[in-house]
Amino acid sequence: MIVAMQDKATEEHIQHVIERMVELGFNVHRTTGATQTILAGVGTPGHFDVAEFKVLSGVYDAYRISSPYKLAGRSFRPEGTTITFPNGVVVGGEQITIMAGPCSVESREQILLSAKQVKAAGAQFLRGGAFKPRSSPYSFQGMGLEGLKLLREVGDETGLLVITEVMEISQIELMLPYIDCFQVGARNMQNFNLLRELGHVRKPVLMKRGISATIEEVLLSAEYILSGGNYDLILCERGIRTYETYTRNTMDISAIPVLKKLTHLPVMGDPSHGVGIRDLVPPMALASVAAGADGLLMEMHPNPDKAMSDGAQSLYPEQLEKLIAKLRLLAPVVGRSVA
Amino acid sequence: MIVAMQDKATEEHIQHVIERMVELGFNVHRTTGATQTILAGVGTPGHFDVAEFKVLSGVYDAYRISSPYKLAGRSFRPEGTTITFPNGVVVGGEQITIMAGPCSVESREQILLSAKQVKAAGAQFLRGGAFKPRSSPYSFQGMGLEGLKLLREVGDETGLLVITEVMEISQIELMLPYIDCFQVGARNMQNFNLLRELGHVRKPVLMKRGISATIEEVLLSAEYILSGGNYDLILCERGIRTYETYTRNTMDISAIPVLKKLTHLPVMGDPSHGVGIRDLVPPMALASVAAGADGLLMEMHPNPDKAMSDGAQSLYPEQLEKLIAKLRLLAPVVGRSVA
Amino acid sequence: MIVAMQDKATEEHIQHVIERMVELGFNVHRTTGATQTILAGVGTPGHFDVAEFKVLSGVYDAYRISSPYKLAGRSFRPEGTTITFPNGVVVGGEQITIMAGPCSVESREQILLSAKQVKAAGAQFLRGGAFKPRSSPYSFQGMGLEGLKLLREVGDETGLLVITEVMEISQIELMLPYIDCFQVGARNMQNFNLLRELGHVRKPVLMKRGISATIEEVLLSAEYILSGGNYDLILCERGIRTYETYTRNTMDISAIPVLKKLTHLPVMGDPSHGVGIRDLVPPMALASVAAGADGLLMEMHPNPDKAMSDGAQSLYPEQLEKLIAKLRLLAPVVGRSVA
Amino acid sequence: MIVAMQDKATEEHIQHVIERMVELGFNVHRTTGATQTILAGVGTPGHFDVAEFKVLSGVYDAYRISSPYKLAGRSFRPEGTTITFPNGVVVGGEQITIMAGPCSVESREQILLSAKQVKAAGAQFLRGGAFKPRSSPYSFQGMGLEGLKLLREVGDETGLLVITEVMEISQIELMLPYIDCFQVGARNMQNFNLLRELGHVRKPVLMKRGISATIEEVLLSAEYILSGGNYDLILCERGIRTYETYTRNTMDISAIPVLKKLTHLPVMGDPSHGVGIRDLVPPMALASVAAGADGLLMEMHPNPDKAMSDGAQSLYPEQLEKLIAKLRLLAPVVGRSVA
Repeated sequence: MIVAMQDKATEEHIQHVIERMVELGFNVHRTTGATQTILAGVGTPGHFDVAEFKVLSGVYDAYRISSPYKLAGRSFRPEGTTITFPNGVVVGGEQITIMAGPCSVESREQILLSAKQVKAAGAQFLRGGAFKPRSSPYSFQGMGLEGLKLLREVGDETGLLVITEVMEISQIELMLPYIDCFQVGARNMQNFNLLRELGHVRKPVLMKRGISATIEEVLLSAEYILSGGNYDLILCERGIRTYETYTRNTMDISAIPVLKKLTHLPVMGDPSHGVGIRDLVPPMALASVAAGADGLLMEMHPNPDKAMSDGAQSLYPEQLEKLIAKLRLLAPVVGRSVA
Repeated sequence: MIVAMQDKATEEHIQHVIERMVELGFNVHRTTGATQTILAGVGTPGHFDVAEFKVLSGVYDAYRISSPYKLAGRSFRPEGTTITFPNGVVVGGEQITIMAGPCSVESREQILLSAKQVKAAGAQFLRGGAFKPRSSPYSFQGMGLEGLKLLREVGDETGLLVITEVMEISQIELMLPYIDCFQVGARNMQNFNLLRELGHVRKPVLMKRGISATIEEVLLSAEYILSGGNYDLILCERGIRTYETYTRNTMDISAIPVLKKLTHLPVMGDPSHGVGIRDLVPPMALASVAAGADGLLMEMHPNPDKAMSDGAQSLYPEQLEKLIAKLRLLAPVVGRSVA
Repeated sequence: MIVAMQDKATEEHIQHVIERMVELGFNVHRTTGATQTILAGVGTPGHFDVAEFKVLSGVYDAYRISSPYKLAGRSFRPEGTTITFPNGVVVGGEQITIMAGPCSVESREQILLSAKQVKAAGAQFLRGGAFKPRSSPYSFQGMGLEGLKLLREVGDETGLLVITEVMEISQIELMLPYIDCFQVGARNMQNFNLLRELGHVRKPVLMKRGISATIEEVLLSAEYILSGGNYDLILCERGIRTYETYTRNTMDISAIPVLKKLTHLPVMGDPSHGVGIRDLVPPMALASVAAGADGLLMEMHPNPDKAMSDGAQSLYPEQLEKLIAKLRLLAPVVGRSVA
Repeated sequence: MIVAMQDKATEEHIQHVIERMVELGFNVHRTTGATQTILAGVGTPGHFDVAEFKVLSGVYDAYRISSPYKLAGRSFRPEGTTITFPNGVVVGGEQITIMAGPCSVESREQILLSAKQVKAAGAQFLRGGAFKPRSSPYSFQGMGLEGLKLLREVGDETGLLVITEVMEISQIELMLPYIDCFQVGARNMQNFNLLRELGHVRKPVLMKRGISATIEEVLLSAEYILSGGNYDLILCERGIRTYETYTRNTMDISAIPVLKKLTHLPVMGDPSHGVGIRDLVPPMALASVAAGADGLLMEMHPNPDKAMSDGAQSLYPEQLEKLIAKLRLLAPVVGRSVA
């Protein structure tokens, strides 16, 4: 930590800051300029709150000079993390991973047809919600356990891996037998108890960026899962909330290369939630991969007009097919490929 | 719902939209202008997603024309909700309610001293966190059950009501014997399972606005609790995330009069989290009450410089005292009083 | 400036940073920790761009440790700036200043009636737009010079000072004979050529915060005017753009006490543009003064339903009157008064 | 316009709204539902302000049902606008246009070397600022007229078209002899007087999106230029201001396909300002073209470490070269090419 004192700071102010730094375990190096004193704290204290120093008398500003996350940092595993799934599919490697399917599991027929279309288009994962977090209590809340069973069944039938959203701790055990990857939704990115539990599970997790989470907060949340011992973690940009209302969210494509630089974890893009409008999904999917994404998570529905949720942002099956065909051409430009 | 068609919409487009509206249970009234057709859907269908109509071919835009929440709306209880606590304290009435205390319960000594100072300053509630949601897994995570017991003990000793944050369903039962009011933090405002459970509890709940929640989303989340049968709900503005970084958050003071207009529920302000800087808390507390808040939730610590969390935004005991003295003078200007 | 190097920075990286710092005129003090090197640059170089250092190889981060504005800083004039107008009205003193009037000057009758109502309610300034910046080229664009003359005429007739918006350099000369205070609108807060010219004028200026301007940017823009020699500058918070759409903007009330702390310049609030909805203007006006504002700028129209612009946020004359009556009671709570 | 009345609206409220609609020139169609009345205004009134209706008594909400811009709308020229420059370069056609160069013209040597590198890399336009809008009055403000002359000279010498930023009306005449395209910066996107003047010029204009401008506001500003008779207009996404601070701005890649859908005007991307960090420029440039951009505007400097402005976001010459090579491979995937 560095503390820059104000021009007018007194020696008393300076001594008080030094004392607090020493109490926290810092070795303090002092630079006394003609107008301003700078205090550099070196060493490895435990957790401290830089905001506390910003409000001390005589302080101009205080700066943390090391990242607050360790295990999530790129330097922890410079070569990057790859995650190998039971059927040999690898996320984070040279191949782009594609996860697609309906927002919600609605019936056996719907999810089976979805799976067949997703598989035919060339995806590796089937997505589908069994438990749905909905902003209105009067909206469809998902099929629950029955939905999980259907996902597993049609996943096995079509040879697709299965990913679904986990909303609370009690669902973890329930889901374990049926799924290949847990998905943590944007609203739960700071549900720290849930993250901690997922750190103890031996199954991969895909964690979406919160709707107003900074990149640093994404990595701190990742740290919760990693510090529990689960290193099979995938991050996912899915749009942030801004003042622009034309799109459902503003997809922060730059977060993809930024995360690839700051962390060793695979990074995917979710253009469906990123923009929320069907016809914008293909260009944003292409943009995600062009910017370095390791994969895509997208909503597709056999009949989007009749979907029980998120129909407006679900691709038609033929759109998904055409998109993946384009991705096959695009991927090599950035040194990747599509299976 | 109203659907405005594009100038160039064909009769086929129009018929398709009408069909979808009828399927959902709307009676459709059609206005055919020289250039544009307008479809007004009346009647009371169940849940529908207006976004689905926005992407249909030939549609210019679609509008929901009734609020998606019912029980939370002002018209449900035009006279406003008041909540009477065991010791006779009323929230939502003529008197301004003041809740204050440290961010975290740290020790018996700390919380007892806090309670005495809070009581002496004139507050009605003691706040203090027993379970802490922290963005870093390496930060202090709270005293847990021990903290709950201490809160109850010192609350009883000083005659203060007790409020603390509940982070997950499993904590509800645990907390019930010790507290007077549950607090739902900003990060859990859309933890719908938690909200649903709190709807079945017979104890008041204070729910904070999420850091990027719209006012409509606040009311939809309130609907989750109300629809479970728990009508003793208090809302709380605590700052939203914007581009401005000088303050920790941007406290949206206007949300207070807006919520007072849209809902019958009491509305409080939390200037501590709203701005995150101690010296800005008093002016923002005064502003909150001037704008119509029913009460204030504030952090105060006997020794903020040594607080285990949120020290930078915690008031010194004497600051709280002076602030409440000013509030006593201010409240009558807006037709209220401070006990 | 301080530069914190990465753990893995090489001596070559460090030397390159030191060289660049020395080239800019810094004296560099080096702290070599066990893991991290810190370079503190002291001395008084001219302008430099801290972003340039952030991207140098081996750098963890770089921090400016003094404010980029000088004349606008509180320490330049710790006692605060007061501005005395020809008729003795003082802005920035103990009295709250009230400026009110219609969005646009529409006719002699309308502006004269407005002036009488504004005066009767207790305001000191008449506001009214002669040149209107409108987002649509098809909207009413103002009466121009004719409007300026009317403002002066009715100002003199009623004993009110006159403030109006200047949109470009060529209007400065034109306006000088007719007005008492220039207003720089939010859209021009970073029209640096205009600001520079206003620095050479000998008439007070009220500058509004840009719709997405940070507090630091407000003060840098102030610096443009001050550095030209015009010290009679008033700042004004008028709402910023956020994700919330219920209100036209989100009025950042906390910017008022923050600016009062950082600068010696008077700070006003504009709740009309801050929220954009008539009935929310009075609570936000009260909140502004409770938070420390030196005055208020508000829209009032004799007949808001027929206003040619901004009718939805213009107060009815009787609302303004009642509001000022309340302000008279509120001001003493924060050590101020209303004339 | 459509006005939806509240459930509890009285007949008097309804009649008042109808009267106001008729006054503005609307023909009103009324739908009386069991609970709610809907008023559809058809016909072609001049300008009106929908906000005015939202605050009338008894109104639930009011909606504009046609876009407020006409000439900028896609339907005005469904086939899309192409702009042909003197040397035959076409913007908005099948080929991707690349504009590159330093932030500021600093000297003859610097701009000549830049031009040669830009040309060698494969760009069609040389960019460079002669007049610089800087947030601090103490920063480098550009070489002015001398800079313009140098741009023209080296543009002619290397066979590049020249684009530079115009900051105010008085610079238009000055620039005309030297440049091929005017650039309107983000800060001037709502400088309506400047836009109006540029509408009367017979030279193409590239207008950047304001830092907090909505897509609708971009198109309304475009309307100012088009309505003056200048149809040679290019739009440019350059990043918006959000809560995320890792990048200088958040580049809204989705604005590119959205604008391509809503307007016939060519749309470019400026990844340099979009992210502000050199190493993120190439992935964001690729993403822009993948998402449908008609071209790119980028900063490149022969020696970014010593640039007088924006060095941190300026590409090294060899980075530009490699990037354009990749763009040549990417463009065909989306049906385009790079010259």
